[in-house]
This record gives sequence, C-alpha cells and structure tokens, in this order.
Amino acid sequence: MEGIYIVKGNIIFTKTFGKFEVFENGYIVVEGKCVKGVYKNLPEKFRNIRVIDYGDAIIIPGFVDLHLHASQYGNLGLGLDKELMPWLQEYTFPEEAKYADINYAKKVYSALIRDLWRFGTTRACVFATIHKDSTKLLMDLFAESGLSAYVGKVNMNRNSPEYLVESTENSVYDTEEILQEYSTKYELVKPIITPRFVPSCSMKLLKNLGNLAKKYSVPVQSHLCENNDEVRFVKELHPECKNYASVYDSAGLFGDVPTIMAHCILVDEDEIELMKRKNIFIAHNPNSNCNLSSGIAPIRRFITRGIPVGLGSDISAGHSLSMTNVIVNSAQVSNLKWLESSKVDKPFSTAELFYLATKGGGKFFGKVGSFENGYEFDALVIDDSSLAIFRQLSIEERLQKFIYTGDDRNIKDRYISGKKIKEPKCY
Amino acid sequence: MEGIYIVKGNIIFTKTFGKFEVFENGYIVVEGKCVKGVYKNLPEKFRNIRVIDYGDAIIIPGFVDLHLHASQYGNLGLGLDKELMPWLQEYTFPEEAKYADINYAKKVYSALIRDLWRFGTTRACVFATIHKDSTKLLMDLFAESGLSAYVGKVNMNRNSPEYLVESTENSVYDTEEILQEYSTKYELVKPIITPRFVPSCSMKLLKNLGNLAKKYSVPVQSHLCENNDEVRFVKELHPECKNYASVYDSAGLFGDVPTIMAHCILVDEDEIELMKRKNIFIAHNPNSNCNLSSGIAPIRRFITRGIPVGLGSDISAGHSLSMTNVIVNSAQVSNLKWLESSKVDKPFSTAELFYLATKGGGKFFGKVGSFENGYEFDALVIDDSSLAIFRQLSIEERLQKFIYTGDDRNIKDRYISGKKIKEPKCY
Repeated sequence: MEGIYIVKGNIIFTKTFGKFEVFENGYIVVEGKCVKGVYKNLPEKFRNIRVIDYGDAIIIPGFVDLHLHASQYGNLGLGLDKELMPWLQEYTFPEEAKYADINYAKKVYSALIRDLWRFGTTRACVFATIHKDSTKLLMDLFAESGLSAYVGKVNMNRNSPEYLVESTENSVYDTEEILQEYSTKYELVKPIITPRFVPSCSMKLLKNLGNLAKKYSVPVQSHLCENNDEVRFVKELHPECKNYASVYDSAGLFGDVPTIMAHCILVDEDEIELMKRKNIFIAHNPNSNCNLSSGIAPIRRFITRGIPVGLGSDISAGHSLSMTNVIVNSAQVSNLKWLESSKVDKPFSTAELFYLATKGGGKFFGKVGSFENGYEFDALVIDDSSLAIFRQLSIEERLQKFIYTGDDRNIKDRYISGKKIKEPKCY
Repeated sequence: MEGIYIVKGNIIFTKTFGKFEVFENGYIVVEGKCVKGVYKNLPEKFRNIRVIDYGDAIIIPGFVDLHLHASQYGNLGLGLDKELMPWLQEYTFPEEAKYADINYAKKVYSALIRDLWRFGTTRACVFATIHKDSTKLLMDLFAESGLSAYVGKVNMNRNSPEYLVESTENSVYDTEEILQEYSTKYELVKPIITPRFVPSCSMKLLKNLGNLAKKYSVPVQSHLCENNDEVRFVKELHPECKNYASVYDSAGLFGDVPTIMAHCILVDEDEIELMKRKNIFIAHNPNSNCNLSSGIAPIRRFITRGIPVGLGSDISAGHSLSMTNVIVNSAQVSNLKWLESSKVDKPFSTAELFYLATKGGGKFFGKVGSFENGYEFDALVIDDSSLAIFRQLSIEERLQKFIYTGDDRNIKDRYISGKKIKEPKCY
C-alpha cells in the first residue's frame, strides 16, 4: 500500500471534551494526510506496512494556538507591567512599525516559526501587521516550514499612531490583493481577515472587510472585550451599537464566516447569546489576560453554553509560545475563577484543557486536533524519560507530568497533515 | 591577596525593594565567602587579582526558595485538580510515607537537589517528612552538593493517616536528636523546627517543639491560613485560641525564634498585626495557591505593613522548581489581586518580585541575596544569547526577558557563599 505508514507508541488524545482516549503501545495508521485508524492491536491487513516505532514515547495531537501576534515576538517577555492601552502605545505599536522593513520581518518571523515548531505548535492563527509585503512573507515562511497557519494582514485606520496607520482605501486594497494571491496558493497556509479591534477600525473599513470576507469566503479574527478601558472606548465610539460585539456584527464580521474572537473577558449576556447563535470561536489567552491585568474570562460559562473555545498564547501580551504553559495557566485561572464565582464556574481538568489545546482550537482548521479516523495527522512525539519520574505512572499521568513539568526538550518529533516536519530555517 | 577573586560581567541586583542596581561590564570582588565590593571601574588596588570574565553574560544573585516539600518531588505535576485537604490524603501522604525507605529517599532527594541546582536555587527552606533517617540523609546530601538549606523533619501526631503519624514522644525525641547532631555539623545546612500545620500537631507537641526551638535556638517553619476548610478545621480544634496564628503563638512557635509561615492567604487583621509584631517571614507560593484553588495572598498589604516576604515554589502543590516561573506567576496573580481589590493592592513590578526572590527570602539566611558589601556571594551567571532578542536591550530588559522566557539552559554557572558549585550527583 502506497503512502501509508504506521506510528507506534503510547497514544493519548481527547475525542470528547474532558475524556482521554488511551492506546498503550498502540498503532496509528496514517494514509496520506489523514488518520485511517487507531488500534490497540494492529489488524492483519496492515501487517506489511512500514512502522515507525517510538517505543515507550507518548504520542499526542499537535497543539493549536488560536491567537498570537507574530510581529510582537521581538518584545516577548518585555513590558509586562502595563494595561492594554498604554502597553499598545508604548511597546507594541513601535515594534509593529518595524515590519515595514522586510529584512527585519524575515529575521523575526523565521525565528518565531522555528520556535513554534520547537514548542510543538502545529497550527496557529496569526496576526501580522498592517504591512502587505511582510505579511505575504510570513505566509511564505509558514508554507516553507510545513507548519499550518491562518495569517492576517492587520487593518488599522484610526486611533493609531501616525507611523502605524493606513487609509481606508489602502487597507482594503492591500487586504484584497493578499486574498487574491494567497487564498489558493498554499494548502496549509491561508489568509484571514484581521481588523485589529474596533478602536482602530472605522465602521466603513469594517464593512469593507465584511464584504471581502463574504466575497472570498475567508474567515475573520479579531479582539473582543479584553479590557475595561477598551470596552468603554468602544461604547464612546459607537453609541449607535448596543454592545462591542454588535459593532462587528453590523459589519458582517461576526460569524457570517468562521470567526475567532480573542479574550471575551467582559462580554455581557447579549453578547454571549450572539456568540452562541453565530458560532463564534473564542480564543482564551490566560497568560495575556493575567499579564495585562485584564481579568479572567468566563470560559466555563461559554463552554456550558456550547460556544467553541480554543487556547491562545497571545504573544507578546502572553509571554510564552508553549501551549503546555498555556494549559497550566488556564487551569490556574479557572481555579481562581471558581473561587471568584462563589464556586459556580467549575475548574477545568487537565483532560478538558488538553481538548481545548488540540481538538477545541483544531476545529477551526477542519478535522484537526484528534486521532479519530479522517482527522489530519498532526502529532507530537513526547520523550519524558528526562522528567522526575520515580514510579510507574499511567499514560494520563505521564501526559500530565509533561504538561506541568516538561518543555520543548521533551518533544522528539512533529507531524503535520501526515508529514514529519524538520526544524524550520532561521534567516 | 589570597582567597580573593573577581567576577566580571553585567551585574544586576536589588539592594532596595523595587529598584535595580546595574553595573554594566562591572566587577564583583569576592573575598572568601563574601562580596568585598561591586565596581563599574575596578580600583587600582585590585588590578592584580584573578578575574573570571563572563563577557556579555548577566550576573545576578542566586534564587532563594523559602518553601518547598522535598519529599513531594516524585509527585511533581501530578494530581493538581484537588483542594488542599483531599490533595493531602490522596496524593501527598501516600508519597511521603515512602520516605521510611532510605533508598527511595536517596534517589528522589538527590534528584531534587540536582534540579534545584539546575534551576539556580542557591538557598532553600525545606520540609522533609516525619522520618528521622531520611531527613538526616537530606541534610547530608545538601551539604555534599554545596547548596544551602534549612531542612526540617516534619512533625505530625494527629489527624494523619496511620501510616504517616508519630507519637508525641517519638516526634519530640527524633527532632531533638537531629538538633543535637546537625545544629553545628554544617555551615550551610541547618535544621529547622517543622510542625506540618496545626491540624496535624497537638498543642502538647507544639509546645514541646516551641521549647526545643528556644533551647537550641533554631528557627521554625510551618503553614498558616492556606485554605478555607483548613482554617475552619483549626477553629474547631482550638476554640480556645482567637485565630490560627495564635495557636502557634501560644506554643512559642510564632516569631520567638526566626519563623517562616507559608501561604497566609486567609489571615485576619489580628493575625497580620501579630505577624508584623513578631517579624514573621511570609513564604508566598502563588503556583501552589493557584493549583490547589486556595486563592491569592494579600502580599502587597503585608509588604506595606513591613512584614518580610520571600517567594516559594512549594512543590509539589507548586508544579515548578523554577524561581523565575514563581516570579512570573507572582506578577500575574498580583495583577488579578489588583482587579479583585478594586485597584487598591498595587501589582508588583519585576524589580519588586526579583527582590523578593533574592534579598527578600535571603534575609532569612543572613546577608544573602544581594551583592552589597559583606553579603555572601551567591550568584548565577546568565547567558541569554539563545533568547529571542532582535535589538539592543538594557540589562534590566535582558533580565526581564530571561525571567519571562528563559529557563535552566540559560544558567551557565552558580556560586554559593563564594564557591562555584558543580552539578550535584544523582544517586
């Protein structure tokens, strides 16, 4: 059988929210890009297929990062003593302005992609900057690496520094050029409409972007209700809209095509109802929400209401690309939210958060983030032999120990859409 | 000049709470165990002294971990979906019981010490278990490694599983044996009186321990007001005492000798006043407090009141030995506390938390945690060349980037009390 191979190891994934499926010393049969089956005992018909035997290693789905700003990578770990609005002015906007220089972009973007690879992120939804050329470059670099990404040229035509602002016309024109050129250029790297957030986009720009989203059938990503000052500012800017979400909605940017909204900390009941009705994906970014003093998003309530949720690193408001770090931080803030909500919003288990970091975010990419039949084979091979283990642990416990105490050194191999991915080149 | 050497590099430390002292390409003159001076330009009289030139590396004081359970290291990263009391019963007590076996103790304790070294912790205040022999072994292993520690044989004579409980007589006898044998055995490793917490120690035991503390002039460490159920239980056990702290106080275990209390999340105003009056050191363990859903300690209020505070990893309720991880988590929860307190309790800056992780906790060890004259020379040499740096950064920014995005791979050398420490042996 051509194009078929088998991966053997201790397989663990979450088909269902909050429940691990475990195949100790099991087999994943991969045909082309996709999983053909997962087995405890290999069926007779697959006996002659090539087996890649990872021995006692753990095999998990690749991590999906549903929200990050590629152009902020140079600022990682810096300036995390501000709230959102001053942080944007003082640290973030000056850094993003550098991406007018394609050489700077190549250096930082390639380093970012190498590090996403390093930390086991196989799929990502990415904000670039307003700059057309470096955004195209970022897409080319992702494609070259083998990683999968939605990449957005950022749109900003108001309330932005003069060194980082576009005219409405240019913003729309450049966006459309990218859509025309990149919508079908790559299989694993796609454009996504990316208005920065309401404060930096006029209603005219938003409506134009809504039209482009429909015309080219491309998804949308933006920010929603992250910070008190931001929400207040949006209310001032749009007294005609009943809330923040409805600004996007009235521009056709809220779920008419698949849509990710990052943060959603301060959404009101009407907004939650709208998010549910329009099937908005929420990118939960706890590190960012802690670092910028934004608060704790009511993620348990979103999930109970059936709203899809994935996890995001949100660098560089988040300080770590590691999705295991994001899982741990998600667990921690969910524990604090449980206290804050007088024990109403139940804390998340490791299995629930693992689901959000794989299949939860993966849904935005299609059949991604699980080892069920027909899912694209995105996988990480975890060698935990260096971790502090002094007794026999179950596969679930070994995964938990990796998540809480391991790092990139424990990730031995990465697969995306059926292909083994080697270390991307840094320029 | 004999016994003198000079360390050269980018020196940064916090003499004052919240303020970095920086000596770019500076010199630290070390004589014997202690810092003799820090200079931007080396004075003439030191021109013939041997210089260890660390080039562009950053040199910082070693980290002080003011609270950790060595005997829980095997459980690191496991079972973090419980509150304190069930977590103790299901995960922690069964693990601690294994330390009756000296061979198991040697294996795990030596791995722990190697990893403390790896993460740049140069001083630690450590809980062992109730077992006398493995506690002595832990002290011997610390001494062999060159790391500095206070190590406590844990006392528990009630409300504990039958496989992990002592009689009052044995508990006191074994504790005194250790004090006699170890009080003067090592210079950098000392015993510390360690009643686990009020629920597991009768008043008779506590009073005996208070007497031993005075008799041998040794310090005390324990837990205080970590969790609601625990505080309620203490109130039931001691209706005669007006609060949790006063139980320790009435036994002579609350600041009559130098005393560390871990957590202090739920202390009341009377307890805060008593802590201030008795100069209690608070070990702030944010990872643990998040992982076990305990809450956020009001650390800003303690510091404003002048109560000494250090940081603790509190493994394995905390999941990481890395004190940089603890600094980041401390910043994050302080931001959330700022929101929770209606913006009264100001968030902590990196310089403030760096102080707590070095000089703040270091004070418990004497003149430790700074590069001021007369301080013991505990230092880490940080090579940040592997981090995502794409422009010229200040030394403060480089330190912040190391704290937020670096790890043990960036620590190139470690010094404790004037001596370079090599990787400890794992048994």
